[in-house]
Amino acid sequence: MLPLLSRIDHVGIACRDLDAAIERYQATFGLEVVSLEVNSEQGVREAMLAVGGSPGGVAGSSGGYVQLLEPLGPDTPVGRFLARRGEGLHHVGYGVEDVSQALAAIGGSGVRLLDQRPRHGSMGASIAFLHPADLGGVLTELVQAARPV
Amino acid sequence: MLPLLSRIDHVGIACRDLDAAIERYQATFGLEVVSLEVNSEQGVREAMLAVGGSPGGVAGSSGGYVQLLEPLGPDTPVGRFLARRGEGLHHVGYGVEDVSQALAAIGGSGVRLLDQRPRHGSMGASIAFLHPADLGGVLTELVQAARPV
Repeated sequence: MLPLLSRIDHVGIACRDLDAAIERYQATFGLEVVSLEVNSEQGVREAMLAVGGSPGGVAGSSGGYVQLLEPLGPDTPVGRFLARRGEGLHHVGYGVEDVSQALAAIGGSGVRLLDQRPRHGSMGASIAFLHPADLGGVLTELVQAARPV
Repeated sequence: MLPLLSRIDHVGIACRDLDAAIERYQATFGLEVVSLEVNSEQGVREAMLAVGGSPGGVAGSSGGYVQLLEPLGPDTPVGRFLARRGEGLHHVGYGVEDVSQALAAIGGSGVRLLDQRPRHGSMGASIAFLHPADLGGVLTELVQAARPV
């Protein structure tokens, strides 16, 4: 089969205090925030920090992103994750060319889809999540960027 | 300050059965194994699977790697992680140009270093780990590739 994944797009990190987490990643690694938004559907306030420069403009990063996620409340996926596991790595997102095609291909492989069709992700991306129980405990996201990376 | 990190080099995933995990990532995403090795110092048998092609040859990947880690025994860092948390995301590795210089820079930022000097990582890389408690619960690795990526 053809490789479906083009790159590691981002690592999603659950945190209790988004502003403090941004400050820590900036002070330690010099990462810059390229997007800061609220995603009500997913119940998070989040920041994208570009790793390795931004050849595609302010919203592009050839080296991927650190995505910092603060829950909007305790009864959200990230809020429940924090209560259960504490702060830390929450998921990994891989770039795909076409998220609908990727879902169709993966749906036949025995991995359960958490999203049957794409929904809205960071920076205008189309995204979908795959079931962690079918991928060794790793919550896995597919990301079709709003513009080519 | 200058950005220290060039890219997300890999995500490290702890698993109980390396061969089964490789099979799952191959069958689901079409990822190819580019390295399979035992690292006695770290107590793991591990595979690197290239994400997004290999422009630098068989051991290079512009899109990063999925690193699958099976512990050599229960009394190893990954063995203890599995007992405590189960299978899943274990750490994230970021590319740096010079890991010694990066450690010197980060050591002054208040983040504790788990390695005071570089040690041997996958595929001949020089690596060092940073303390998860100082980075929001994320075990963080710096990776200086054996050859340019």
